[in-house]
Amino acid sequence: MKITIMSEVFHQALGDVVRAVSTRTPMPVLTGVHLVATDEGLTLVGSDSDLIITRELPAEAGRLDVEQPGAIVLPARYLAEIVKKLSGPIHLQLIDDTTADIRCGEIKTKLKGSPSDDYPKLPVMEESETLQLDASRWMEMLKQTVFAVSKSEAKPVLTGVHISMGEGRLKSVATDSHRLAYRETMIDQHIDRSCIVPYQAIGELIKLWDGKTDAVEVAMNEHHIHCRLGETSLYSRLIDGKYPNVSGLIPEGSETLVKMETKQLLKGVDRACLFAGEWKNHNVYITIHDGRMKLSSAATQLGNIEESQRIMEIEGTEEMKMTLDGKYLMEALRSVKEETVTLQFGGIMKPVVIRPEGNATHLQLISPVRAY
Amino acid sequence: MKITIMSEVFHQALGDVVRAVSTRTPMPVLTGVHLVATDEGLTLVGSDSDLIITRELPAEAGRLDVEQPGAIVLPARYLAEIVKKLSGPIHLQLIDDTTADIRCGEIKTKLKGSPSDDYPKLPVMEESETLQLDASRWMEMLKQTVFAVSKSEAKPVLTGVHISMGEGRLKSVATDSHRLAYRETMIDQHIDRSCIVPYQAIGELIKLWDGKTDAVEVAMNEHHIHCRLGETSLYSRLIDGKYPNVSGLIPEGSETLVKMETKQLLKGVDRACLFAGEWKNHNVYITIHDGRMKLSSAATQLGNIEESQRIMEIEGTEEMKMTLDGKYLMEALRSVKEETVTLQFGGIMKPVVIRPEGNATHLQLISPVRAY
Repeated sequence: MKITIMSEVFHQALGDVVRAVSTRTPMPVLTGVHLVATDEGLTLVGSDSDLIITRELPAEAGRLDVEQPGAIVLPARYLAEIVKKLSGPIHLQLIDDTTADIRCGEIKTKLKGSPSDDYPKLPVMEESETLQLDASRWMEMLKQTVFAVSKSEAKPVLTGVHISMGEGRLKSVATDSHRLAYRETMIDQHIDRSCIVPYQAIGELIKLWDGKTDAVEVAMNEHHIHCRLGETSLYSRLIDGKYPNVSGLIPEGSETLVKMETKQLLKGVDRACLFAGEWKNHNVYITIHDGRMKLSSAATQLGNIEESQRIMEIEGTEEMKMTLDGKYLMEALRSVKEETVTLQFGGIMKPVVIRPEGNATHLQLISPVRAY
Repeated sequence: MKITIMSEVFHQALGDVVRAVSTRTPMPVLTGVHLVATDEGLTLVGSDSDLIITRELPAEAGRLDVEQPGAIVLPARYLAEIVKKLSGPIHLQLIDDTTADIRCGEIKTKLKGSPSDDYPKLPVMEESETLQLDASRWMEMLKQTVFAVSKSEAKPVLTGVHISMGEGRLKSVATDSHRLAYRETMIDQHIDRSCIVPYQAIGELIKLWDGKTDAVEVAMNEHHIHCRLGETSLYSRLIDGKYPNVSGLIPEGSETLVKMETKQLLKGVDRACLFAGEWKNHNVYITIHDGRMKLSSAATQLGNIEESQRIMEIEGTEEMKMTLDGKYLMEALRSVKEETVTLQFGGIMKPVVIRPEGNATHLQLISPVRAY
């Protein structure tokens, strides 16, 4: 292996793949970055075995020249650190199958790594069932659901986002059993599949997206999902198990339905949370009275806060009292992009349904706190 | 106490004083901010008893109106959090000597605190010996020395910066006994005093400076130093004890003296530190040979790095080998503002003297690592 690569190209590519490299792993080879040079270009791979990120760099004069193909695994931390501090063309050449010689101007480094053959192979996907999606819509779906996963390992399936395709729809759901976030979108392809993706992988995928790549390709097999964003790919191991059927949880009718300004309500809930942190569930009290919504929290030793906001529209019972987890409510409102939002109350102990106005593809549920 | 204050004015002032507020303290009153309103304005005080930061806000129509003087101590965390989330004029009024009513538009908060009398008084300074200094010069002196203090509590006096005035000079010194940073400046006033200021206080003072305030007033008494930057003041308890006499440590002659480009050398040392972290002392090897300086580090299991830089000028023996702590050398070079720097080597086990070229007021020493 003998390549010449511009420092900023190498640095940026390493930045993507080292996100997946774990520092603590029972497999020492996974503390490295797998570099594979072919006549077509250079592929970089980083992995902690559950999550794999790859980056392909096509050969291009002045950016990347492959003089001799080859492959090696080099320690991720040291490689990223030295490349960050170099400027201009970097010459990387193997001395033997575990040692690379790296030169840049007057700077010479020898880095010891592992033979390429020791590095695990990439999962094989059923590419025939690859879904083509608009990247910004896919990212929005994930952002609008991932925050609602369970942070507890008690029910492992709930620590992931449930992605399902079928009947011309792509659906994304997450729930920790106290709240739920649901988002769907139409798809053209006839694929019938579902999987549970660990929230860490979703988080990394969101961070990987540069906002520029237009299309994403999503493929899965029994154990892995693969998302390709241009030259960057993320593979994640799936969570085994059966995801609960959530469609029965969504209440049909409502006792009270209010329409509010999303941003103003979010700011109000944020303020009303001032003393909510003193409670296990971030208790925020909501009172509907006289065409206004009162938001408040209190802690005996510390004080209290309250504010009231005008309700834009109200349907059904015009008096209502409820205690919600203010943190859940804030996260739900933050995921709504639309200017107005509807809150549908089914009664004091029934979950609240939050929907952006005029958008039936996005829905959230929050169970009340048993405080009254 | 009854005041009206603009949210952004209050927020910014609280931001300064809460830096000194400690969350863990045996005196609960110190978890609060002391608010004192007089006809002249509002004073805010935050303290962890070793460090005190005060901010004076003069009464000014539309920014701060004092309708009724008074004072209270309010919980810093809650007060800062709510003020951050309010926008526009804030009305703050005492209900009794431990409770404040805070209103802003439709938002109402009650915050419980402590009576003003429970808050410790500010230290009394000997203002007759107040030193007037250019703020940017004072901050530069502190930045160029504070990093060299000892991080170990074994010798408490070394955890502070030694500030001394006398013979028309102001001197600032810090050392951890392996390296030393020294900076001096001329002063017009005839004050003869010295003190040891904890490094935490120096760090806070540097952060407090907004870069705009031109002048700083420095006063001290037996136990405290007081630095006033416009409306903001910092008081710090001094470290008791006798600071070592460091003037005898500075070597007179030199075996080799080299002149180097500061930034280029700093970058080179930074790169050469790649494998230095594997050693207790961040060993970086320096070799002078053939008009060039070679910088390198190595770790048997990982690899090695080396680079060579042109020496601009050399005096004395032209061959030299030495091992220095690369982290110390980087911090020393980073504090040099000048474009060129001289390194004076006295021999393999003698400290290296680093001076900016053409600036006799700034000097640093680094003891070599016993590696050869």
